[in-house]
Amino acid sequence: MEPLERADLYPSRVGGAPSLSPRLDPVVHGDGCGPLGARDLDHYKKNGFLFIKGLFSAAEVGAFSAELEKLRAAEITRRSPAIVLEPENGKVRSLFDIHRTSRVFAGLARDGRLAGIAMQLLGGPVYIHQSRANLKPGFDGREFYWHSDFETWHVEDGMPRMRALSCALSLTENTPFNGPLMLIPGSHLHYVSCAGQTPEGHYQVSLRRQEVGTPDQETLRRLAAEGGIAAPTGPAGSVLLFECNLQHGSTGNISPWPRSNVFLVYNSVQNRLVAPFCGLQPRPEFIASRDFTPIVSARPAAGLPGRRN
Amino acid sequence: MEPLERADLYPSRVGGAPSLSPRLDPVVHGDGCGPLGARDLDHYKKNGFLFIKGLFSAAEVGAFSAELEKLRAAEITRRSPAIVLEPENGKVRSLFDIHRTSRVFAGLARDGRLAGIAMQLLGGPVYIHQSRANLKPGFDGREFYWHSDFETWHVEDGMPRMRALSCALSLTENTPFNGPLMLIPGSHLHYVSCAGQTPEGHYQVSLRRQEVGTPDQETLRRLAAEGGIAAPTGPAGSVLLFECNLQHGSTGNISPWPRSNVFLVYNSVQNRLVAPFCGLQPRPEFIASRDFTPIVSARPAAGLPGRRN
Repeated sequence: MEPLERADLYPSRVGGAPSLSPRLDPVVHGDGCGPLGARDLDHYKKNGFLFIKGLFSAAEVGAFSAELEKLRAAEITRRSPAIVLEPENGKVRSLFDIHRTSRVFAGLARDGRLAGIAMQLLGGPVYIHQSRANLKPGFDGREFYWHSDFETWHVEDGMPRMRALSCALSLTENTPFNGPLMLIPGSHLHYVSCAGQTPEGHYQVSLRRQEVGTPDQETLRRLAAEGGIAAPTGPAGSVLLFECNLQHGSTGNISPWPRSNVFLVYNSVQNRLVAPFCGLQPRPEFIASRDFTPIVSARPAAGLPGRRN
Repeated sequence: MEPLERADLYPSRVGGAPSLSPRLDPVVHGDGCGPLGARDLDHYKKNGFLFIKGLFSAAEVGAFSAELEKLRAAEITRRSPAIVLEPENGKVRSLFDIHRTSRVFAGLARDGRLAGIAMQLLGGPVYIHQSRANLKPGFDGREFYWHSDFETWHVEDGMPRMRALSCALSLTENTPFNGPLMLIPGSHLHYVSCAGQTPEGHYQVSLRRQEVGTPDQETLRRLAAEGGIAAPTGPAGSVLLFECNLQHGSTGNISPWPRSNVFLVYNSVQNRLVAPFCGLQPRPEFIASRDFTPIVSARPAAGLPGRRN
């Protein structure tokens, strides 16, 4: 299969002008059976995301937060390349690879409430492409400009097709004021090919501030005119699932309230990484895992509690 | 009266630690008669602001926007000190003193819908302390950190008491996504004395990025825990009135939608400026007017159209 997959179906940063083209992959893969009902599936197909309020309990959120605090404080973390600091003040902004450095987050990655949905939407066995915790502090949380994760994963990591999704579990309340994730509904149905070329070692910069792989203003204006902007808000323990090609970003956070999330990216084992399409070396393992071992989910993927299916 | 007014009732940036003290002035001055009814007055007293949706018509907004575009394009504007540019890209961020450089905005300042309310809340004749248009572009509008205008006007301009208010008239729709003004309701009832000292020529920096005269995090946390955060949204032509001592700020704007406002600051003629309390030279006239001629309002201050009084 490998030779076929080398065809670049989604070229970007290849030196041309930015362009918009149709998505070539389904949004929901396989037969669509699993914990989500028809209404949720339709919403996800059309909008590219799904927000499930209070999927995890306060007690579970408490345990995840405590674990994160432990990881953040650990001396070994400080020396790890899998940590991203705020450029201005050296505070921890992101911790990567937490499903491998923490038993607690390994358990979360296998949790049927997330892995079950991922298997349903991606049509079969999945593995973790990337995991991280984002810590957006109060008062000086920085903004993240619009981007499609898939564009980067394709160009810099060699992810061939759109058959992956992110789960963002909130460890703090998401309000309109603490820099919540903003999404452009429906933008996952288009592929935005970006201008520019990928410089070597780009990830060391782009994790702090993205400079190539960002869509042009004209395209963003068009996508937002069509789909608007959504920024789901809800209590800690809520989960935002979004398709790998959905345009998203977030403003800074000057509110006194921090915003912390755990991100888990599920990719189909049918969509394992090949060599990066930009022709450079692959990014490190903690950003783009090449361990394609399927997740064995800890719970059966039955109907979600409290969810009308 | 002058010698009495020299007592500094609201010291700030005097080298000490930050502190919180009670407001010493009424919020609504005089007998409170005028276009606003009891419910609006109570809301303003308690929260420090009032949002009036669609106070100006689409046609009026169109005329103001056209006038602003004319001012922005004029060669004379480019050479004026009353213009503030974005540090990164040289785009116009603010145009000051527009009630003196434009007949259209002079008319707006006299409009009974604004001046009538200002006279009601400030208890008698008023003049314009400052006017400006803010242009927050789409995609890269910058954030404004929390501050009380009064703190700056007191320290840097010599405004003795809290007897002024701002009217922000939206020329674009305010959405949750284009960096709307955020307010901390009730914060106008406290005075936050700030750490630091005012450097000479501070205004040349602070109009772009404020560095002294910003409240400490502990105080902001406390005020927001008490009053929360509000960010009124509504169509172009809406007006946000807010008390001079209300803490406010705004995040950046990465949405494709610009956000433009016209700001008019009314001050009571009983509260005219004295020498700045920081002991430095007064800021320029275009930022802090010393022309205390009372506004002669163009319309009688009768009940507002479509407003339940």
